[in-house]
Amino acid sequence: MGLTSKSSQTPQPGRRSMCQPWEVVKTPVCVLGLGLIGGSVMRAAAAAGREVFGYNRSSDPVQAARSDGFDATAELEQALSRAAATEALIVLAVPMPALASMLRQVGDRAPQCPLTDVVSVKAAVLAEVSRAGLLAQFVGGHPMAGTAHSGWTAGSGRLFVDAPWVVSVDDHVDPKVWIEVMNLALDCGAVVVPARSDEHDAAVAAISHLPHMLAEALAVIADDVPLALPLAAGSFRDGTRVAATKPDLVRAMCEANSAHLVTALGETLQLLGDARDRLAASGSVAELVEAGYAARGRYDNLSRPDILSTVVGADGWREELATAGRSGGVIRSALPTRDSRG
Amino acid sequence: MGLTSKSSQTPQPGRRSMCQPWEVVKTPVCVLGLGLIGGSVMRAAAAAGREVFGYNRSSDPVQAARSDGFDATAELEQALSRAAATEALIVLAVPMPALASMLRQVGDRAPQCPLTDVVSVKAAVLAEVSRAGLLAQFVGGHPMAGTAHSGWTAGSGRLFVDAPWVVSVDDHVDPKVWIEVMNLALDCGAVVVPARSDEHDAAVAAISHLPHMLAEALAVIADDVPLALPLAAGSFRDGTRVAATKPDLVRAMCEANSAHLVTALGETLQLLGDARDRLAASGSVAELVEAGYAARGRYDNLSRPDILSTVVGADGWREELATAGRSGGVIRSALPTRDSRG
Repeated sequence: MGLTSKSSQTPQPGRRSMCQPWEVVKTPVCVLGLGLIGGSVMRAAAAAGREVFGYNRSSDPVQAARSDGFDATAELEQALSRAAATEALIVLAVPMPALASMLRQVGDRAPQCPLTDVVSVKAAVLAEVSRAGLLAQFVGGHPMAGTAHSGWTAGSGRLFVDAPWVVSVDDHVDPKVWIEVMNLALDCGAVVVPARSDEHDAAVAAISHLPHMLAEALAVIADDVPLALPLAAGSFRDGTRVAATKPDLVRAMCEANSAHLVTALGETLQLLGDARDRLAASGSVAELVEAGYAARGRYDNLSRPDILSTVVGADGWREELATAGRSGGVIRSALPTRDSRG
Repeated sequence: MGLTSKSSQTPQPGRRSMCQPWEVVKTPVCVLGLGLIGGSVMRAAAAAGREVFGYNRSSDPVQAARSDGFDATAELEQALSRAAATEALIVLAVPMPALASMLRQVGDRAPQCPLTDVVSVKAAVLAEVSRAGLLAQFVGGHPMAGTAHSGWTAGSGRLFVDAPWVVSVDDHVDPKVWIEVMNLALDCGAVVVPARSDEHDAAVAAISHLPHMLAEALAVIADDVPLALPLAAGSFRDGTRVAATKPDLVRAMCEANSAHLVTALGETLQLLGDARDRLAASGSVAELVEAGYAARGRYDNLSRPDILSTVVGADGWREELATAGRSGGVIRSALPTRDSRG
């Protein structure tokens, strides 16, 4: 593994100084895929003082990145050889269908590099990484940021500022790789949410994939009622905003997380079916409305305590972080590691 | 009925000049209820040069309206006597539970005045108006505008600018009252959508009340999944925005429209049930996603043709307007009437 600890006198900007001072060289970053998310990682990592280089299969984003002053190539071999030589952190930022072939090339050219991804659904990515034999150096990631637009030009070095960035704490993860991925997310301005991959996938089914299904259904139903679209205003517009997302993108996320989405849809059917039956029988929607109002209130008042004391690599660190993340805890500055405790 | 046509030399600001010039005196407006909507009607009507006066049961909004320079009272008898004397258009802007007693007083003190309302669900209002014996001079209305806030201080004379304002074209409506209500909506800057009350209620079930149910359900489901609220971002925030509305307000709208909402919920259950079954069986959400995307596209590209030629009061005018409204047609400047055709 290309993760030998190195000494450096460079101060760590944006990191809280620890009781035990510690320093880590800023690992170079190799971004594979220069779309909205990959392109934004490239910009943010460069702004944080990282050496960063990237690859994209089609040449337009490569040209655009170059003319913005970034180091980009359409030659995958070249990018991966450099990653291997510099022991770079490789960031997989390609769409799900391109992942398997990309991972084969990583396995051929840069099998020792620490590896992360910024693709949404984690179980599907984990399965591909495992199939490629790269699980030992992989820690999954998911920055919860995006815009309605896509591609290099839509990206921004500020896209991740204050956004939650999930970093996986599955049983297999290596503490040194984990620290690398955490440091990249913090360098990008994000707050790190440690989470198990399966819990991440269940959560995004509820907060991202289910909202897409509800938006699609609302649009279809209103479209069938005479006079509805001409009268539609704020509630409909907000409720269907994500139905304007290109179908291919919606299908890619939702279908990659089908088991969890089937569960979330089943719960929705139960809840709305009960509400319909009660409204028909008693004329009241009190139960659903009061529960929804209370739940939305808990979201608005969510506390986000800092995770400060977990020592990455110490006994039980993964479960400790998963528990903290589940209760809303976030990492805003680098955690101590066993090495850094002196 | 206090609707005798009067001559006036005052030009009509904001009205298209017709082939046959015509003039209508600006009828005074009596607003009953000075909350967000009533208070905004008062401001907008005054800004359009109308004589406008209002009533509110509690005195704080009355004091606030007065210190903003408006003519307001907490004495209902006084407001209604003045409405009767000036043949004012009375605008019912009280919450649904206050409507029946308000209508009894209107029937006692100002039974000849033209009457409209700005309360959401039309069938429930029609039933109360009918019970009070005031149907002949009543034309229902519903401005599709609002904010997250309520009360006099949240109002604005610009609230209705470019907003659809439904004016009912039910079988019973009198053309002279209809013209009065249309003119008020146009004076407030709204675009008038002519619609039958039953079609209005079915439409708002789909575009307003169903979105509330979906938002409540989404909030409840995500709240039950560990890690979901800490990761929630744009899709969840937009999808649950209206779940932050006070439960009493949501219940008042939804429960007053229960039959149509039961239907809309039934269609939702069917659509989401099919999507769940297909996803479980074949791993695909293509059908729902493509239909939703197409429907949202139709909303984004809705054409809003001007209704220009219907002569209010001519044979079949109500059905002609209902048909035009159903296809997205709107009234942006006063329609001709039989009287105005010379």
